[in-house]
Amino acid sequence: MNAVEEKGLYYPVDPSSKGSCFLGGNVAHGSGGPRVVKYGTIREYILNLKVVLPTGDVIWTGANTLKNSTGFSLTHLMIGSEGMLGIITKAVLKLIPKPTQELLLLAAFTNLEDCASAVNAVLLSKFKPCAIELMEKSGIEISMNATQTPFPTHESAEAYLLFAFDGFDGEDLFEQAEGIYEILDGFNAIEILPSPNADVAAQWWKVRRSIGETVKQISPYKEEDTVVPRSEMPMLLRKVKEIGSRYGFQSVCYGHAGDGNLHVNILKNNLSDEQWNFEIPKAITEIFEHCKQVGGTISGEHGIGLVQKDYLPIVFGETHFTLMHGIKNTFDPNHILNPGKWLN
Amino acid sequence: MNAVEEKGLYYPVDPSSKGSCFLGGNVAHGSGGPRVVKYGTIREYILNLKVVLPTGDVIWTGANTLKNSTGFSLTHLMIGSEGMLGIITKAVLKLIPKPTQELLLLAAFTNLEDCASAVNAVLLSKFKPCAIELMEKSGIEISMNATQTPFPTHESAEAYLLFAFDGFDGEDLFEQAEGIYEILDGFNAIEILPSPNADVAAQWWKVRRSIGETVKQISPYKEEDTVVPRSEMPMLLRKVKEIGSRYGFQSVCYGHAGDGNLHVNILKNNLSDEQWNFEIPKAITEIFEHCKQVGGTISGEHGIGLVQKDYLPIVFGETHFTLMHGIKNTFDPNHILNPGKWLN
Repeated sequence: MNAVEEKGLYYPVDPSSKGSCFLGGNVAHGSGGPRVVKYGTIREYILNLKVVLPTGDVIWTGANTLKNSTGFSLTHLMIGSEGMLGIITKAVLKLIPKPTQELLLLAAFTNLEDCASAVNAVLLSKFKPCAIELMEKSGIEISMNATQTPFPTHESAEAYLLFAFDGFDGEDLFEQAEGIYEILDGFNAIEILPSPNADVAAQWWKVRRSIGETVKQISPYKEEDTVVPRSEMPMLLRKVKEIGSRYGFQSVCYGHAGDGNLHVNILKNNLSDEQWNFEIPKAITEIFEHCKQVGGTISGEHGIGLVQKDYLPIVFGETHFTLMHGIKNTFDPNHILNPGKWLN
Repeated sequence: MNAVEEKGLYYPVDPSSKGSCFLGGNVAHGSGGPRVVKYGTIREYILNLKVVLPTGDVIWTGANTLKNSTGFSLTHLMIGSEGMLGIITKAVLKLIPKPTQELLLLAAFTNLEDCASAVNAVLLSKFKPCAIELMEKSGIEISMNATQTPFPTHESAEAYLLFAFDGFDGEDLFEQAEGIYEILDGFNAIEILPSPNADVAAQWWKVRRSIGETVKQISPYKEEDTVVPRSEMPMLLRKVKEIGSRYGFQSVCYGHAGDGNLHVNILKNNLSDEQWNFEIPKAITEIFEHCKQVGGTISGEHGIGLVQKDYLPIVFGETHFTLMHGIKNTFDPNHILNPGKWLN
């Protein structure tokens, strides 16, 4: 239990990289994580930022208040600016009362698209999970093996949904889980299990959270942080697999289905360096062009950095770049901050 | 019932000026309203904006997704920019399932500070009202008379709190109201009433919502949109009254106590034009300086416009203005948009 939780308070932003990431970095890339479904991203928990500007000046971007309509929101401009406008040295956070109960529900599906379709139906109901995580079979298997953690796989399952519910009333969580059980039944779920106790729940979370890191241990990879309108998730998954079969790559998909945010890990496996360096970027371009076409974009929570830099013109035209360059020049006229990243 | 609600969906942003305001304006000043306590401001419901720039170029600022870490957030920069960076012509909104039940709880206090102190205790509990509105006795009386609407006033009451709860389960709302009843008892509430039915609830809301407009009918006024950390509300109220007694003005205070956002209406009544034009601005400066000193600022949800323009240097230093001017120049190099407002 950390210092915040000892006071009965809670900071709900919960990136899967917790343990290795830092708060300043989380702010700088607009961190998300599983609990965004109920709690929103880091953007909703940052009230005010202390920023050292490249000129040496120091400002507080806003006020320590829950609302602020005073001037352009430099706070929100800094969130997600990836270290290119200033260095964040302090943050004033919004904290909320800490939920005392958690319940998980795990559902197995024979079909990746049914699995993704069920998510939208749940989120249009009156039930409010705090997280809805989608995991492909292959991701679960890699993570289970690498972490030696048990997980209730089903032999016919191609994909799983992990629902989390939190609150102050265990009975209410149980009723929500029951309500969602009925909805999932309508989407051909082949097995639905509630977490029997906190230890098992921790194992399920561990397997989910370790997918990203353990997949990366078995092969060189390219990870894309695709995000689309939530109802477009089933189509995005179909598209990724179709592009994969044309270009001959294996992908492991997992992520925050409740937000339409799918992490697509493309594995090198037996692809030649030539294919990896010249053909796969074309495949990624096709995936991102699809995202753009359905109203999505190329990063939901990771930011652009170096990895997705080359794909930025898929979503931004010349006018957009001109505005972003103008903002950059205003804050950092000598371009001394984070050179070589996506806007230099 | 509007087109959104016919589909079982809900747009929870609920400014008190509804009926006379427009969505584009709401985006441009970062609208709030009573339900921010549970649902957040308009910022949390805007996914993407179509903007006509002063250069004639047209952009979409983001994507139609629940999360977006792709480039500087022009969407969030536009929200609250008060028409000075571009003209918003379309908005993609996040909608949520529509709650089916609402319950109000009205609490009367002999003392304005007890009333404000109770708010923080409630929001640290496990109960989650969607709105917590604070109203001074004088505001209630003015609004009741002008709108000819009944309201259960208590003869010893100096101030009232109106709590709203919404959800899908009437029994759960009733339990929450009961839980809050106990908390309010500890802050010397002299009367606590649940709304007996929807008609009475509508009357209570009408009296609350009409305070702003009806106060303005009885005297020339200056309205300030103060916002402070929530726990500072009792001290802010004491300060406003103390400054009022020194400068000889009557104030009617009301607003969104759950967010620390207090609308302070200063009435001209019998003050001379000289006092009104030269002394009262000094009093307002003192109020805003107090807000700044405790971590607050000068506008929680109204924006700056013309009314609060002269007070902006209380919260922003030279560096802040330089950055905002740079952003303005990037978007509107010829300064053709909304000239004469706070940043020209």
